[in-house]
Amino acid sequence: MSVHSKFERLATDNAPGQEVRQREGGLEQIMRGAPLGGVPVDFSHGDVDAHEPTPGAFEVFEAGVRVGGRQAYTEYRGDRGIRAEVAARLAGFTGAPIDPDEELIITPGTQGALFLALASTVGRGDKVAIVRPDYFANRKIVEFLEGEIMPVALDYLGHEQGTAGIDLAALEAAFAAGARVLLFSNPNNPTGVVYSRAEIETIAALAKRFDAAVIVDQLYSRLRYTGVDYTHLRALGGDRVVTIMGPSKTESLSGYRLGVAFGAPDIIARMEKLQAIVSLRAAGYSQAVLRTWFNEPEGWMADRTAQHQAIRDDLLERFRRMQDITVRTPEAGSYLFLKLPHLAVSYGDFVRLLRVQAGITVTIGTEFSPDCGDSIRLNFSQDHAAAVAAADRICTMVDLYRKTAP
Amino acid sequence: MSVHSKFERLATDNAPGQEVRQREGGLEQIMRGAPLGGVPVDFSHGDVDAHEPTPGAFEVFEAGVRVGGRQAYTEYRGDRGIRAEVAARLAGFTGAPIDPDEELIITPGTQGALFLALASTVGRGDKVAIVRPDYFANRKIVEFLEGEIMPVALDYLGHEQGTAGIDLAALEAAFAAGARVLLFSNPNNPTGVVYSRAEIETIAALAKRFDAAVIVDQLYSRLRYTGVDYTHLRALGGDRVVTIMGPSKTESLSGYRLGVAFGAPDIIARMEKLQAIVSLRAAGYSQAVLRTWFNEPEGWMADRTAQHQAIRDDLLERFRRMQDITVRTPEAGSYLFLKLPHLAVSYGDFVRLLRVQAGITVTIGTEFSPDCGDSIRLNFSQDHAAAVAAADRICTMVDLYRKTAP
Repeated sequence: MSVHSKFERLATDNAPGQEVRQREGGLEQIMRGAPLGGVPVDFSHGDVDAHEPTPGAFEVFEAGVRVGGRQAYTEYRGDRGIRAEVAARLAGFTGAPIDPDEELIITPGTQGALFLALASTVGRGDKVAIVRPDYFANRKIVEFLEGEIMPVALDYLGHEQGTAGIDLAALEAAFAAGARVLLFSNPNNPTGVVYSRAEIETIAALAKRFDAAVIVDQLYSRLRYTGVDYTHLRALGGDRVVTIMGPSKTESLSGYRLGVAFGAPDIIARMEKLQAIVSLRAAGYSQAVLRTWFNEPEGWMADRTAQHQAIRDDLLERFRRMQDITVRTPEAGSYLFLKLPHLAVSYGDFVRLLRVQAGITVTIGTEFSPDCGDSIRLNFSQDHAAAVAAADRICTMVDLYRKTAP
Repeated sequence: MSVHSKFERLATDNAPGQEVRQREGGLEQIMRGAPLGGVPVDFSHGDVDAHEPTPGAFEVFEAGVRVGGRQAYTEYRGDRGIRAEVAARLAGFTGAPIDPDEELIITPGTQGALFLALASTVGRGDKVAIVRPDYFANRKIVEFLEGEIMPVALDYLGHEQGTAGIDLAALEAAFAAGARVLLFSNPNNPTGVVYSRAEIETIAALAKRFDAAVIVDQLYSRLRYTGVDYTHLRALGGDRVVTIMGPSKTESLSGYRLGVAFGAPDIIARMEKLQAIVSLRAAGYSQAVLRTWFNEPEGWMADRTAQHQAIRDDLLERFRRMQDITVRTPEAGSYLFLKLPHLAVSYGDFVRLLRVQAGITVTIGTEFSPDCGDSIRLNFSQDHAAAVAAADRICTMVDLYRKTAP
């Protein structure tokens, strides 16, 4: 594939956060009614002003700056002392040991970790099992690496809490057809569903049987709601598992750009080699902020989780008043994925109308799966009242643009 | 190429900053004499404790954290307001306008910018003209992208101040053979030589004639010593030029991981698409630090330059006492590239002995060119007295390990 055609496929116009670069022309002809007013809400990402960064994070950064050169210039895989701290805490959280020297790398955000992990395991023409829907960059990275995507459906609407709904037969078929890498997020982004122990056990068993590498994005695995069981894939063994996490979401530390990947030492070693030419290292001073991670003040995490659960429940209550919006209750994380009814405008135009007419930014479902063009993703880590008011406006907009029988 | 063989070639064991991961065994058998003592000096990168970050940088970062979500979540190409400030200052510095909306991207370090610029222009099998010696990552990135390197020699020792010594006939031949991308650093890393106006004009003319993209790494173009003329390639026109700079070196702001690329809007647009899947954006809060760039207190840059020129001159005086160390006077930046005499040990072992016996970390020349195995690079942005003492120890080590006629 030429570099030109490669970039033709690498569209970011609908990616979360890039809406400011979208054209807004041509909506006048299709707009129904007047602007709705209300406080603008950007559901494309969390509002770190409404849910503030971990207490003490900035102070730890400042201490890192005071350390000076030693903190600015770390090994490419990150500062040894910080890796040791983080490895111990993540081992406790995930239920399996982590060698800080060989099994963990600090990256510029979890995005950096995802790219490095895939680029370290996927060559041109290699088959990669990708869940649909799942985080939008997964597909784009595999395409950039000229890998071949083997889609595995997640029937999240066909299952209830306790089962994510992955098509395990399709996963086995993908492995049987030659896929040697599986990438998926758990909790799933965009739906917020959590894989059951049985699902994770089957994934682990299949990966072992086919000697496949598994990259599991657990970015939201700390923010779990009442009554949800969570199984860490890496706790089930397997020497080709890489887990990706980071303090950017639940902890509102996105502005520092921090992620970690941990697991298979051979893959971690490749990731460091590649990081050396992609970005050298996560910002040295920022790395210090990881000292606050899994080390928050007593009760802080429980509070944050309760706040998000309350917002989730209020939004679900609004959306479920609508007979023709379909949504499954997210079990973790801060995403809601709404399946919309038939509309009189295209879903792409509806998303633009939401922004222009209702002051609401959302991410269209095609970013997550070609089959989800009728869905939108909301990151509900927002100001509670503003989010609820915006949910009401979304319902109003659906009413305005609903396709009525001819 | 399989992903396995790709990573086999992507070695980082001798890369600057990674020395801590090197094995040190086996040196006892070849060591001559006792440890030399003295203050350890790590010449693999600058000492940001000896030459501190720009005054006010931390305060601007702190203000960025206070801004909150808007600073944490910028467009992938970086905050619009900061791009506007930086574009205006860089336009003044380089002598040609920059559209902040279309012609500039903020990246995680200049390393990030280099990777994105190459990955946006080089596809598998594409020929790329690379200068030898030049920054070590250039070659590695092209290899990772499965491009074909067309080496262009820089005869830096065969020329005097005022001419870098690029083999322009070889460059023309590379273009004639199909290369459509040229990548080089000016000032050159590792030698510190600056290209003459005539050299830059010929490069620009050749690039236009062959419609080649030129990526020019000008990381050290601010730190220029007395009597040095500097020509910005982009000021000569050409719509396929991308210039890379950043505040990590001269300004000692490495710990914030900031770089910028500016120029050809189509390449910048691709770089942003790719950044979206590689690292999303430069750390949002760090971006704020760019407000201090080219905006330092009166006289600060002149002082910093004078300090470095004084260190350079003292080191050169030491090394030139040795009849058989060859070094050209660097005209800009903070690198010295020493060509060593024949030694009784391999140069790789000598570099390890320097570290173990003399407390001195340097980077071996093979990182910059396969032809420079007898050379070592020193970043002399160090404490002045410690650097001079370390230079004396390097001379002592050369005396100790010099190959005497049989």
